[in-house]
Amino acid sequence: MSAEVSTDSPGNSRFITLEGVEGAGKSSQLPLIQSWLEKRGRSVITTREPGGTALAESIRSVLVDGEDMPPMSELLLMFAARCSHLEDKIRPALDEGNWVICDRFIDASYAYQGAGRGLGEDTVAKLEAMTLQGLQPDQVFIFDIPVQAGLERVATRGESNRFDVAGIDFMEKVRACYLQRAAAAPGRYTVIDASQDMQAVTAQVQHALEKLL
Amino acid sequence: MSAEVSTDSPGNSRFITLEGVEGAGKSSQLPLIQSWLEKRGRSVITTREPGGTALAESIRSVLVDGEDMPPMSELLLMFAARCSHLEDKIRPALDEGNWVICDRFIDASYAYQGAGRGLGEDTVAKLEAMTLQGLQPDQVFIFDIPVQAGLERVATRGESNRFDVAGIDFMEKVRACYLQRAAAAPGRYTVIDASQDMQAVTAQVQHALEKLL
Repeated sequence: MSAEVSTDSPGNSRFITLEGVEGAGKSSQLPLIQSWLEKRGRSVITTREPGGTALAESIRSVLVDGEDMPPMSELLLMFAARCSHLEDKIRPALDEGNWVICDRFIDASYAYQGAGRGLGEDTVAKLEAMTLQGLQPDQVFIFDIPVQAGLERVATRGESNRFDVAGIDFMEKVRACYLQRAAAAPGRYTVIDASQDMQAVTAQVQHALEKLL
Repeated sequence: MSAEVSTDSPGNSRFITLEGVEGAGKSSQLPLIQSWLEKRGRSVITTREPGGTALAESIRSVLVDGEDMPPMSELLLMFAARCSHLEDKIRPALDEGNWVICDRFIDASYAYQGAGRGLGEDTVAKLEAMTLQGLQPDQVFIFDIPVQAGLERVATRGESNRFDVAGIDFMEKVRACYLQRAAAAPGRYTVIDASQDMQAVTAQVQHALEKLL
């Protein structure tokens, strides 16, 4: 992990990822970030993990809505989807000078499978080295909210997946891992207080985006 | 790789895998091996990779019949399916004292993705170390046939998948890798001349099985 901005994104392109526990509200911010950047003349591609390509979306359906599975299967499926996403969508978009805004990326593997499922940082790091070829996000926004508050928001949505129902202890490990990664590389991470109302969250995000322009 | 028999299989259980290029006829031998062993009082479970559990079969459909994908996605999907197969089917069956006969296993990852797709032995070895926890087949049968002859057999079947159509150069690398792995650990591998007629192949397999009883 390094505090330096990745040199992998050529020209004016930027690779920005949104992370956080369930119910943190990051997905709601995605279209707001896109329109804010487009108003400032940036060409923006938005995408999500697991997903972003036809192959990765088919893996997503196995992962998110499927039956229970060994933690290592879950981790390997995430990386299988990520390889396709990187090769067929993210790298080409960055190479063309776009800003790519991705809802979850590598940090989610550290937080959910490494910490939450207990597979450990080292296992995730080995897979990262095998697959990402040094690419890392230029900026990671961590949408931080107390676990209980996030899960209450999810409950009001009326739908749930295998990760929402993993429990409070699991999600506490996920949150702690995100905050630890942010603390270790403050130049590449911005922690957003996602317990605020949506307008305040949006304002904090845009303040951070201004520094990237 | 070691020439010793795995100590992972307790009691009278044995873990036997069948490997070979497309059209080598290994899958046709599977039920014959099963009935031959059952006549000798062994309790036998037969299975296949990718597959063997509901999760792994759903991954198989993405892998075998799905669209083109990056080689690394293919490799990671194979291992994701294998983790489920090991945890939910193979290890429990061995623990109960069964003989487990599996149509393809770890050697196929070395041959198809490591050699055929060019990902390299080292990458496959890292994933093996992360997932198998030292388990290896007690005996691997390599059904060996010249690539062209195997592909002609596949053609007469009238159906094909992503691996059948990968081409002769690809399949030559797969075959060479299988033979190289067999040569490196002759105690654990038996090379079967699969270009013979089916009766002769069956006789050669049964001769090898007798040594395992």
